[in-house]
Amino acid sequence: MTTAPALEALAHFLGERLTRSKSELELHGRSESHFPLTLPDAVAYPDTVEEVAQIMRVCAAHDCPVVGWGAGSSLEGHGLAVQGGVVVDFTRMNRVLQIRPADMDVTLQPGVTREALNQELRATGLMFPVDPGANATLGGMAMTRASGTTAVRYGTMRDNVLGLQVVLADGRVIRTGTRARKSSAGYDLTGLLVGSEGTLGLVTELTLRLHGIPEATSAGICAFPDMQAAVTAVMDTIQMGIPMARIEFVDAATARAFSSYAGVEMAEAPHLLVEFHGSPDSVAQDAARFAEIVEDHGGSPFRWSAREEERRALWAMRHNGYYAILASRPGARALVTDICVPISELARAVEETQADIAASPIPGPILGHVGDGNFHAILLIDPDSPADLEAAKALSHRMAERALALGGTSTGEHGVGLGKLAYMRAEHGEGWDVMGEIKRALDPKGLLNPGKLVPQG
Amino acid sequence: MTTAPALEALAHFLGERLTRSKSELELHGRSESHFPLTLPDAVAYPDTVEEVAQIMRVCAAHDCPVVGWGAGSSLEGHGLAVQGGVVVDFTRMNRVLQIRPADMDVTLQPGVTREALNQELRATGLMFPVDPGANATLGGMAMTRASGTTAVRYGTMRDNVLGLQVVLADGRVIRTGTRARKSSAGYDLTGLLVGSEGTLGLVTELTLRLHGIPEATSAGICAFPDMQAAVTAVMDTIQMGIPMARIEFVDAATARAFSSYAGVEMAEAPHLLVEFHGSPDSVAQDAARFAEIVEDHGGSPFRWSAREEERRALWAMRHNGYYAILASRPGARALVTDICVPISELARAVEETQADIAASPIPGPILGHVGDGNFHAILLIDPDSPADLEAAKALSHRMAERALALGGTSTGEHGVGLGKLAYMRAEHGEGWDVMGEIKRALDPKGLLNPGKLVPQG
Repeated sequence: MTTAPALEALAHFLGERLTRSKSELELHGRSESHFPLTLPDAVAYPDTVEEVAQIMRVCAAHDCPVVGWGAGSSLEGHGLAVQGGVVVDFTRMNRVLQIRPADMDVTLQPGVTREALNQELRATGLMFPVDPGANATLGGMAMTRASGTTAVRYGTMRDNVLGLQVVLADGRVIRTGTRARKSSAGYDLTGLLVGSEGTLGLVTELTLRLHGIPEATSAGICAFPDMQAAVTAVMDTIQMGIPMARIEFVDAATARAFSSYAGVEMAEAPHLLVEFHGSPDSVAQDAARFAEIVEDHGGSPFRWSAREEERRALWAMRHNGYYAILASRPGARALVTDICVPISELARAVEETQADIAASPIPGPILGHVGDGNFHAILLIDPDSPADLEAAKALSHRMAERALALGGTSTGEHGVGLGKLAYMRAEHGEGWDVMGEIKRALDPKGLLNPGKLVPQG
Repeated sequence: MTTAPALEALAHFLGERLTRSKSELELHGRSESHFPLTLPDAVAYPDTVEEVAQIMRVCAAHDCPVVGWGAGSSLEGHGLAVQGGVVVDFTRMNRVLQIRPADMDVTLQPGVTREALNQELRATGLMFPVDPGANATLGGMAMTRASGTTAVRYGTMRDNVLGLQVVLADGRVIRTGTRARKSSAGYDLTGLLVGSEGTLGLVTELTLRLHGIPEATSAGICAFPDMQAAVTAVMDTIQMGIPMARIEFVDAATARAFSSYAGVEMAEAPHLLVEFHGSPDSVAQDAARFAEIVEDHGGSPFRWSAREEERRALWAMRHNGYYAILASRPGARALVTDICVPISELARAVEETQADIAASPIPGPILGHVGDGNFHAILLIDPDSPADLEAAKALSHRMAERALALGGTSTGEHGVGLGKLAYMRAEHGEGWDVMGEIKRALDPKGLLNPGKLVPQG
């Protein structure tokens, strides 16, 4: 099947905002991860919801696949047009439409990035806390159900999207949700669309929950004699109900990578990086209670600070973690894993994964959002070595199976994309067929991000 | 169409657990609210998921409607078999299957009530906080996306159901979700099913998030000169980020009803009832900060207590609010409204509703979960007066329209059932058709709770 008639029709109203230039196709055929270059047939840059609907209607009329694109920071190849067609790049739809401080919500276009949003919010005393690390677009974050370091306190995109405007496969434009904080008015379409990875519709507007910038913040770091001690400290902290805003684990290999990349002094040992939000009194209290737990588990004295610049340095280091780890094996590319297990199984899951990596030919530093039971091994491969890729895929495969065996999920926050499709049957059983039935009901021709998420063929 | 062949086949394996006795049919044909008696053809009492699946398969083979039933405490007629068929009563499936304190979750059968669950949890230091007032079953609460007084802190059922086991319309049994705290593995089927009111499947098992019983709790009450002052105090409290566990509004008419029903002394004025959860220090601090806000808005001194028995008395009064209000007009039945608006519109929504009720021939005390922007007018009608019912329906209609005009929802927590079906088109637009498309994909014969939630015919 040719997409030529669709592209011709699209060029009529998009003009130069439909491009087939080699550099543009390559830019939208690449992934942040290990997936091979996969060129779309064209890239469209709509300005309005009406244009997105028109793109969709034209493509539906000509059976042309349509794939949404945000910042391209997905790690599972979500934006790759594996069956060709048009990539719809939302970069130009990047306006914050309305901030409502009294209701602590904001309506914006999908191409706004989380950093741009927080920049615009500065004067309001409000923030959007979901933070996957990368400066992703909020449309992309909604579509992959992103989370990150602050989910333990503020939830994931599932918890922070109040409503959406969406273009469906047949070009209809619907709104889901209201601006009320809760509703029991029928099926939760917002919830169904968040995490749907562009397979059910194209998001053209989002209304998000905002949160007050905490009056005070304290953050700190401590080392542990072994991984087990660090994870048990996390469990005790949760059990005691100490309200963490972030609680991040890095293993010894990651600590070493941080030390050489950022020039910080970190012992080559497992660490926890922790942050508390609240009043000046409460964050001091929380830090003190946490320090006791650390001591009980033989950790290094918990050094914490409420000073802005020290906290910034700490989280900048964590945010650059991916790049620090990449730099630890020059020239390497990464296969990033992302499993999430019940907290009670976390130590076991990390331990077995570390042993597995130690027995493999490639390095795989581990870091994770352990308050949620979610962690990543960054498997470092020589891009020219098929053996490395093979080893990484085998490790990743065993991690996913381990997560499922322990009652967890094969993907905590990165989504299915191409990388986790093979685990959906094991994870969902016949529930995966139900996802396929919903997909067929809303996109009978299978034009929205084909080849992803649901059973194929 | 006759349901006789289905009933005969069901009786074969259910024996006396399929009943057609007049008293049983009447018990399952009644609603807590104003809807007329609507008898099903039979009531089934399954013991296991296998039996539920078999019931579903038999009914599917004979095109017989199937309606789930929990405690019968729904306020919108969800459980009424408006097209006849079998009501499946989950009373016998009432076991707590597994409590996992380390993971702070629990797996249980749908017939467990929230009070029974909290009773079983006592020794663990954990609680299930979602509290709609009535001692509903957790299956029913999941199906209506219930919330109540504590949603402002702990969320609604949407936020507290981790996973489900569900029997689909064709008898397939699926599991949704995992025990991991978060996942981005495809469509959120758990979220789609929570709030689906039995129209997509019958829930046979739930895994719920638990929360630590707070180390300390403080609660208190205060009166305000007028409604506007009370609502502004709520908005300021939210803006300042004071973490409330409950913040309930009652108007002067409700305060009067409380005074005569419970024998408590309450001024005939708008009140706020508030609770804080945390450490002994933090709840004292929260209460003190809230007291300042109350003073700023001319409220009566905020009297608070951390003593268990005083708190219990306060919330017992609030929980009995519905009955106190019913008793304020002897012999009356209630039409309970349930709108939820953005916080910035709350004062206006309450004010316009009060004026509307004052101009009507019937009383309608107001109370609500104002931290969420959600409130109820309990419209009291003489069950023998068609004029009263007419007046109540007109008031309810204007409230729903008002909520939608202000960017809110026609039902904050009671669900659609029969009572809110008429507002779904206005609330969702073409999104309502999408709900119908999902329903048809999963229940093509329309056997699961027919006549509810989605577009009809």
